Order: sequence, then C-alpha cells, then structure tokens
Amino acid sequence: MRSITSPENPNIKLYKNLAGSKKRRRESGMFTIEGVRLVADALAENVKLHSVFVTESCMEKILRGETVIQREALDFPVGRSDTDGTEVFFISDSIGNKMSSTDNSQGIFAVCCGLDKLPISDTIKNGGKYILLHRIQDPGNLGTIVRTADAMGVDAVFLAECCDLYNPKTVRSTMGSLFRVNISETELDEVFPIFEKACVPTFAAVVDGNAESLTDCDFSRGGAILIGNEGNGLPKEVSDMCGKRITIKMNGNINSLNAAMASGIIMWELVK
Amino acid sequence: MRSITSPENPNIKLYKNLAGSKKRRRESGMFTIEGVRLVADALAENVKLHSVFVTESCMEKILRGETVIQREALDFPVGRSDTDGTEVFFISDSIGNKMSSTDNSQGIFAVCCGLDKLPISDTIKNGGKYILLHRIQDPGNLGTIVRTADAMGVDAVFLAECCDLYNPKTVRSTMGSLFRVNISETELDEVFPIFEKACVPTFAAVVDGNAESLTDCDFSRGGAILIGNEGNGLPKEVSDMCGKRITIKMNGNINSLNAAMASGIIMWELVK
Repeated sequence: MRSITSPENPNIKLYKNLAGSKKRRRESGMFTIEGVRLVADALAENVKLHSVFVTESCMEKILRGETVIQREALDFPVGRSDTDGTEVFFISDSIGNKMSSTDNSQGIFAVCCGLDKLPISDTIKNGGKYILLHRIQDPGNLGTIVRTADAMGVDAVFLAECCDLYNPKTVRSTMGSLFRVNISETELDEVFPIFEKACVPTFAAVVDGNAESLTDCDFSRGGAILIGNEGNGLPKEVSDMCGKRITIKMNGNINSLNAAMASGIIMWELVK
Repeated sequence: MRSITSPENPNIKLYKNLAGSKKRRRESGMFTIEGVRLVADALAENVKLHSVFVTESCMEKILRGETVIQREALDFPVGRSDTDGTEVFFISDSIGNKMSSTDNSQGIFAVCCGLDKLPISDTIKNGGKYILLHRIQDPGNLGTIVRTADAMGVDAVFLAECCDLYNPKTVRSTMGSLFRVNISETELDEVFPIFEKACVPTFAAVVDGNAESLTDCDFSRGGAILIGNEGNGLPKEVSDMCGKRITIKMNGNINSLNAAMASGIIMWELVK
C-alpha cells in the first residue's frame, strides 16, 4: 500500500476533479464515492474501483473490525482479479479532510470506474416494472427514488434529462442502492419504442383529478411509470406519449407530496 | 410600518434567539418562520403572528404582485382582529441576510405565537386515522412526514420524544403543512389510554418478515400507526403495547426505505 503525503498527488487530483466536475465524470466514465458504507457496498457488489484512499485512523478502525468493511476486502487483489488493478493508498487525515464533502470525514474514499450496464433493449422485458424519471433536478430526490426502487425491487430505473446520477450528493443519497439497482440514462425517443416492442404499458404520473386513480390501475402486465420534474411535472407532449394518465388522489393538500414521495407510493402500488 | 436599522433591535434579537434556541422556543411557546411560502401559508391559516419582518426588496415584489403573498395580507390588522397586534417591520437587506438561514434570503421572516391545539382527548375519535412518531430524530424526516400527512389527510400526527417540530429546519421542510395538520406532542402513557378508550386499533410498524404485511392490514375501523426511530425502529416494549405488528414486505434491500418513505407508504395504505 502506497502513502500519499501531498495534496498535489495526481491520484488525489483525479479524485477531486471527478468529485467537482460533471464534465470530467462524463469524459472519463468515472465517479467518486465517500464513506465506509458506500465503499463497503461497492466492494460487495464487485464494482470496479480505480483507487481507494484510506486515512490511518480509518484503517485502524477497519483492522480492529469496527466498520462494515472487512479487513480482507482491502487486501487487493485478493478476491478480485489481478487485472482489476485497484490501487489502495494511505492518506493523512489532513488530506482526507480536504477530500471530504462532509464535516465529519470517515476517512475513506474511492474512484469508481463506472458501472456495467446492459443495453436498454436487453433490460426491458414483457411484464417488467420500470420507472422512467423525466427532468428530475434535485440530487436528493433522485437518490431517494433510486434507494426506494431498490427496496421495492423495481426492475430498472431510466433517467431522461435528469440531474447527474454521479453527482457526489446523489451518490450519497442513494445509500449504495446505486450499485444494486439497474439504472440507465436514456432519451424518450430511444426508450418508448422499446417499451412498445416489449408490450410494456406506459403510465404518466400527473396531478389531475380526472386521471385514473392509482388505486384503480392494473399493473398485472407490468408497466413503465413516468415521473416528471419537481416543479412542473411532465410536459403535455410527454404524458401524451403514454398509454394512460394516472394520479394519486388525496384528501389533503396536493402540493404536499414531493416527487420522491410520490414516486415511492407509485412504485409501492406497481410492485405490491 | 416601522423600520428597523439596528441588528441589536430587541425584535430582531427575539427572532434570532427563537431561531437558534429550542429552550427559548419551549419557554415562550413561540417559533420563527422564513420565506414567502411559509409566511403566506401562516397568513392563510390565520396563525397568530407576533411580528413580521420584510426587506424593502421583498416588499417591492409583494407590491408588484410577484409573490404568493397578497398586498392586503400585510396591511395588519386588516383581515385580523385588532387585538392580534401583529407588528410589521421594514428591515434592511443586510439585516435580512443576517437573519436568514439560507444563502438566498427571500427577505421575509416572522415570529409565530404558537399554534392552537385541541386537547389530545378531543382529537382522537373512533374511526380516526393517526400517525404516532416515536423518537424520530432527523428534522428533514419529521418535516417530510408532516408534509405527507397533510397530502394524505391523516387526522392527526402525534410526536413522542421526537426532535423539535419548531426547529427552523423542520418547519421549512414541512412546506407549510405544519399549519394545516393537527400535530401534538405527547407521551406514550398519555396517548395509549385515549386510543383504547376511543377503540382506535394500534399498529406498530416494524422491520420483520413475520409481522403482518401492510397489504393485508384492515384499516376499516381507522387506526393509529407507530413509527420508530430512523436507526433503531421501535423498542420492543413500545411495539408490544400495540394491538398488531405490521411490516412493509419488500423484494429488494430492506435498508433502502427511510423512515419518511416508510411512513408515507403506510399513511397511503391507511387512508386510501
């Protein structure tokens, strides 16, 4: 294991550039994760890691068995192929604090090489249950929806014109579900013909008392549900592309359901 | 309308003390709100306000009709009884920025005198639908649950040993539902006998595959659902107090449902 003592080290710079720049993430296909839980989840799901950075105080905790990360998991390449070539670096606490996006750094960081994705045409199957998010802009909402999709066992989540899934804030709020849920970025023109070909019915989630109530929806043949932007919902031309318009009928104040909560309730009905 | 030019003005100090100190909120029964939406909601719900602070730039927007606050609403005591005695103050932008808990202050603040509450024994009725939160600690979760309870039309939300409802972060995340939902702080020993007397069945929400599935629950006679702490759930002695133990059965990763999302899904089933 190599030690890094300078914040100008190219591996530290790579981490910081990726954490801070969507452009750099797009160009390289890589992104960053921070914290014991996320690194443990990435290791558990065999996510390919470019590099891992551990402070001495964090490593002591790992060695004492005080974290969810098993000591063996960091003995690369044990349990991973040699060609993975993950490098593990010791860093000082002060470098760790500079890398951290939180006030209380847990002292462990990694650069992920990107997630393996099936082509969308292989993901979508007759009878499958999908969520398609359109222009979701809040990283916390996106993360919460991905996290809930994991709990619900939704078959895949598709993102059309959403905020960046690999933004550190979004990654953090997925709580590791990012590594377990099948998530793909797509465009409406790409994914709709595939839904149609696979006979997956499409449902536009709208705020409209005249739309079909979620409680009456028939999801027995599966379905793809479209969720729109936090402030504006789905544009009419997008909801018009769907087979049905569905709505959550409520007694109280309709504005009191945020996009993540509405998505969660809809996924619950979709899969239950 | 009086102008305040000094940050040492006692009304400004009162606002800051209340915003910053749970103790001061408890002692006085007052709390603070910030932002156009919350002040508009408080006015719409006839919440008794001690004082309102408006920057000149915010007042200009109100006068031009560019906010959800109607010009007339700030012409106290119009539309309110004279004895309300709400004072409205002009403040400078620099004082507004000092009062604000956000980076982009909207320039409007108020001190609320507290919310009128029915006694709990008058709130709980046979057939009613209630949520009882036990030791919820995250202000954002508490706010989101209150917000969702508003959407769902739950009859009341009870808080036992939770974080402070009047914490500015919690108040903000309720998005004004704080003023519309019947919310009371209580203790388990106080509220359980009242549920019993009113024949309201009680349900403990637990993470346990052997508990009754939420999809099988009979809420036709109403019910009170207990939701526990984010990390630890309900203590056994508390879930043992309830008539039934219920759970959200899931296909995916059970850890991927946070307390607010679980509460939202349970409320959905309770009221639908």
